[in-house]
Amino acid sequence: MIRFLLIGAGRIGKIHAENIARNPRTTLIAVSDADSNAAQALAQRWNSKVLTLEEALFDREVDAILVASSTDTHADWIEKCAAAGKPVFCEKPLDLNIERATACMRKAQAARIPLYLGFNRRYDPSFTRIHREIRSGSIGRLETLHITSRDPAPPPLEYISRSGGLFRDMMIHDFDMARWLLGAEPVEVFARGSALVDPGIGEAGDVDTAMVMLRTAEGTLCQIANSRRCSFGYDQRIEAFGSNGMVRAGNHRETSVTMADSRGYTVEPALPFFLERYAAAYRLELEDFVNALEGVAVELATGEDGRRALLLADAAQQSLISGAPVAVR
Amino acid sequence: MIRFLLIGAGRIGKIHAENIARNPRTTLIAVSDADSNAAQALAQRWNSKVLTLEEALFDREVDAILVASSTDTHADWIEKCAAAGKPVFCEKPLDLNIERATACMRKAQAARIPLYLGFNRRYDPSFTRIHREIRSGSIGRLETLHITSRDPAPPPLEYISRSGGLFRDMMIHDFDMARWLLGAEPVEVFARGSALVDPGIGEAGDVDTAMVMLRTAEGTLCQIANSRRCSFGYDQRIEAFGSNGMVRAGNHRETSVTMADSRGYTVEPALPFFLERYAAAYRLELEDFVNALEGVAVELATGEDGRRALLLADAAQQSLISGAPVAVR
Amino acid sequence: MIRFLLIGAGRIGKIHAENIARNPRTTLIAVSDADSNAAQALAQRWNSKVLTLEEALFDREVDAILVASSTDTHADWIEKCAAAGKPVFCEKPLDLNIERATACMRKAQAARIPLYLGFNRRYDPSFTRIHREIRSGSIGRLETLHITSRDPAPPPLEYISRSGGLFRDMMIHDFDMARWLLGAEPVEVFARGSALVDPGIGEAGDVDTAMVMLRTAEGTLCQIANSRRCSFGYDQRIEAFGSNGMVRAGNHRETSVTMADSRGYTVEPALPFFLERYAAAYRLELEDFVNALEGVAVELATGEDGRRALLLADAAQQSLISGAPVAVR
Amino acid sequence: MIRFLLIGAGRIGKIHAENIARNPRTTLIAVSDADSNAAQALAQRWNSKVLTLEEALFDREVDAILVASSTDTHADWIEKCAAAGKPVFCEKPLDLNIERATACMRKAQAARIPLYLGFNRRYDPSFTRIHREIRSGSIGRLETLHITSRDPAPPPLEYISRSGGLFRDMMIHDFDMARWLLGAEPVEVFARGSALVDPGIGEAGDVDTAMVMLRTAEGTLCQIANSRRCSFGYDQRIEAFGSNGMVRAGNHRETSVTMADSRGYTVEPALPFFLERYAAAYRLELEDFVNALEGVAVELATGEDGRRALLLADAAQQSLISGAPVAVR
Repeated sequence: MIRFLLIGAGRIGKIHAENIARNPRTTLIAVSDADSNAAQALAQRWNSKVLTLEEALFDREVDAILVASSTDTHADWIEKCAAAGKPVFCEKPLDLNIERATACMRKAQAARIPLYLGFNRRYDPSFTRIHREIRSGSIGRLETLHITSRDPAPPPLEYISRSGGLFRDMMIHDFDMARWLLGAEPVEVFARGSALVDPGIGEAGDVDTAMVMLRTAEGTLCQIANSRRCSFGYDQRIEAFGSNGMVRAGNHRETSVTMADSRGYTVEPALPFFLERYAAAYRLELEDFVNALEGVAVELATGEDGRRALLLADAAQQSLISGAPVAVR
Repeated sequence: MIRFLLIGAGRIGKIHAENIARNPRTTLIAVSDADSNAAQALAQRWNSKVLTLEEALFDREVDAILVASSTDTHADWIEKCAAAGKPVFCEKPLDLNIERATACMRKAQAARIPLYLGFNRRYDPSFTRIHREIRSGSIGRLETLHITSRDPAPPPLEYISRSGGLFRDMMIHDFDMARWLLGAEPVEVFARGSALVDPGIGEAGDVDTAMVMLRTAEGTLCQIANSRRCSFGYDQRIEAFGSNGMVRAGNHRETSVTMADSRGYTVEPALPFFLERYAAAYRLELEDFVNALEGVAVELATGEDGRRALLLADAAQQSLISGAPVAVR
Repeated sequence: MIRFLLIGAGRIGKIHAENIARNPRTTLIAVSDADSNAAQALAQRWNSKVLTLEEALFDREVDAILVASSTDTHADWIEKCAAAGKPVFCEKPLDLNIERATACMRKAQAARIPLYLGFNRRYDPSFTRIHREIRSGSIGRLETLHITSRDPAPPPLEYISRSGGLFRDMMIHDFDMARWLLGAEPVEVFARGSALVDPGIGEAGDVDTAMVMLRTAEGTLCQIANSRRCSFGYDQRIEAFGSNGMVRAGNHRETSVTMADSRGYTVEPALPFFLERYAAAYRLELEDFVNALEGVAVELATGEDGRRALLLADAAQQSLISGAPVAVR
Repeated sequence: MIRFLLIGAGRIGKIHAENIARNPRTTLIAVSDADSNAAQALAQRWNSKVLTLEEALFDREVDAILVASSTDTHADWIEKCAAAGKPVFCEKPLDLNIERATACMRKAQAARIPLYLGFNRRYDPSFTRIHREIRSGSIGRLETLHITSRDPAPPPLEYISRSGGLFRDMMIHDFDMARWLLGAEPVEVFARGSALVDPGIGEAGDVDTAMVMLRTAEGTLCQIANSRRCSFGYDQRIEAFGSNGMVRAGNHRETSVTMADSRGYTVEPALPFFLERYAAAYRLELEDFVNALEGVAVELATGEDGRRALLLADAAQQSLISGAPVAVR
């Protein structure tokens, strides 16, 4: 039974709290949050308790720490976990700054604590299946990869300004997917973007519509398309094309219902957003974190995976600005 | 090159005329119709000529006759073709009366002329594929068959009154499909129907919504559902369920387009009616009629197939009236 | 907080135990089972306790009882709950014998205890949506209903012999669906069945493949098709056809993945069986049972619904034997 | 009645011959081909005659000329048609060399002859529908466009060497689609490609797998993906994503059949190649060429459209070589 300290009682913290509480292999022994009311409420919901951070980190009852606090605190928390010698599962990203991200990852390595990142899409059952089919060779040699990722609606402008930009905030998930599915490192990034959804996003120096092209040393090609707004739900699709076949994952829906009338046949929109689409993924990544702590090989993103996804995001941002493709080492 | 006389220049006659004219193995040498203007127009369209019936039947240039005139003339025409020793392809049904149908079929047999019926659905590429899969054993033993057939809109009431009723006019196609796909004769028919679309149809003694259940001696079961009205186009579907698998055919559409927005994903309705859905079938059944004349084994419905479909329709009508299942020999 | 006693620690009892334990509005305070080891294990899994039946029934801490024991004990349990004045949610059916079912339902009514039946399909999100669309009038007047229900594999022969037969054991779910969706009582049942899957089932006097046709007083027609075996998973589909449109629910799958190669495009089979397909339904029906206890109007099947479903099953069985349609009052 | 001279009796010439012969508004009065046997056979098939080129061009009976000869002869033919004052419909491309293409287009303009290019995909019913939906505003403002185009199998290496390369030979169709659907000119092209299908293609200096990104002045983005080999048929898909909705076209199939068994549900591969997928498009573009000659506004690609598609192909080729995006004016 792995005893968890949860740091962060916000939207994603709540999901992790529930999954920890309901998983027979884990217990939520404490919740910590800068907002003590939020911590209190969440702790009470799952028969847990609230600990201050100092208490929590060095509490011998804490076997593992799940960091779901705001992005700008991730690196600090990881370093504190390293200092305390506690395994940590941290929501993405490590940090928005590559040096900071690298530094905290190094500290975790030096302390030899397990460090995993919450790139939850690796645990979406549909994407997991794509990964398995590629690895098993059932589509032959992977030649091109196509990732579409569209949010239902843009976040508030104030969020945009501290998000690190679309590539570091949103497409970073797709960069992780690309690396994971390609099974090889992209050596070149070319990015283009526009502010078509909300001019305010453009004024804030960001884009809301973007395309990226990646290339590996072997010549495998990858397209990524992002939009901050999508009228038909949370659009999350991947297509992997190979020499012998193709495997793709479409959107998920709540029901299997089709309506038909004189206008045609209609099925419901995609699930609304990540909480719904990736509900299973959040559950399964926790499961695999426990597996990892027990020594099982897992697909969880490591600190190094987090660093490399950020490298790609930085390269995309640089390409967007310079207008030229950027080499990645 | 098979030289055709076409009898009937109406809606279905026009389709056959075009297919005969465009098929490199066939020529349309003459058109005949009680309405000489219609005959004239159609003949002109395809560089053919008009013949009176007497001229046509015994014209040595006529190799085969395609009967697409009104239902009440079919049996007479078949008998005349028999007398003239000409092969005949006749639109369904032989006749609405089983004795008359049987009699004309017998005359054709006695005259040893080839007689085939236009149960065109046997040549719909989707249904042909179902037939092939069943015969090949790919679904194992066929256990249940499910046929759905809905017209887009009811015909005029005056048509209803001389149609012979839904079972003989509309479901007769499904009875032929059932026999052809089951590969065995139904031994029992149970029918139920209602006038839900148009009360006038009920007042005319007919139904517009009907279900039938068939059973073969071996215990294979079949459901048929008909409606005279369907809001989403011409609904023509078949599902064949077997011990090792299932094969089904859905509706056909003009494009492969999907629209998506906040209401969901929408594809266009089914093709509007039989002219569109069965365009390929009309072409292919003609092709196979020519094959048959050349001695090739074909899937075309014979006179006997027409008679047995009518037997089932009669049994359904009797079951509807009596409220009890009817045995068929 | 509704405190539950669970009777029955078998396959379905385990699902209910988990749902009760995880629902914030309910607690599992005790488990009872003739097999005390099973009861013990399940109680321990959810931090509950084991009570003997006498203790449990009159325990003042028990607010409601969930009966998930074997079919032949349902009626007894309902009567005991009635005697104890406890609300009861009982797995289907009330009993396999209509007199016994009616008697126990009457006792529950006399004791004025809430009695609901576990016809879980009413809470499948896809079927719930069909129900809502029919009631909202979006398809116009409902004219025909089509229910397909196929189990992945037949149960052991020893189960068959005490199951009450396919109509009372398996199709009874479809009879409940039919009544619920039709919004009217069938007045006639016609049934046909065969033993095509396993001759042993036929030797046991039962069928494994069956079709039923239902008719309401207004002339609405309904088809049901059942098979005890299906190669492509648990086949659970419904189509409701109306004057203005159609709504249908297909099978559910675990992922949205499509594979394509030279053989075509393939998607995975349907979910394997009821535990997977109806996982949400089990959770939602419990939720609504709690709502019902709080006075909210719900879609849960009542004792009377259970009795009427059994009446239809009996009529189908009688029709199968007599070969004639059976009137239902 | 438009009287056509067809130049070229090869694979595509045969399609045009059939469509001209069968269209009631057109006649095939002559066929010309460097291979006189091929010309003879095709002329005979459609009751036409063979003319030498000199005879044909100035024959007063020729109303229009359809050029379906080999690519390296297109520009010459267009210039001859211009000299003869005959309207011309020419298979794509004008020429593989942009100067030559521009020159022949200018001559056609100077001679004021109608000049249209056979970018047949504009007449595919599914793509036509996408175009219409974009123009009608039903998806709001078009923001991103996604084009996938994969041939079933690579052409022979000898074809590759004189093809002008993937961008000018194959992706040129997608460039035309992009321009037509975007309704705006791309101002930048970025291209990447690999020889993954056949190393011989790489040795010949070409690629067989390619991705391109286009951008318009307004910031609309477009992705194109090409492969010379596809295991599941001729893969021709387009997705147009807008502020209020999305419209996409999938592949076409011959039947609507689904097979299901323990491996899942399978539908047949996409239609095998362009002759099948674009059969309707070939027919409809001819129809619209006749419309154009009668003064109706049409969607046919003009000489200028052909020149601009070639400009984009040249830019892509340059980008592939230089590794940098290329501006297009």
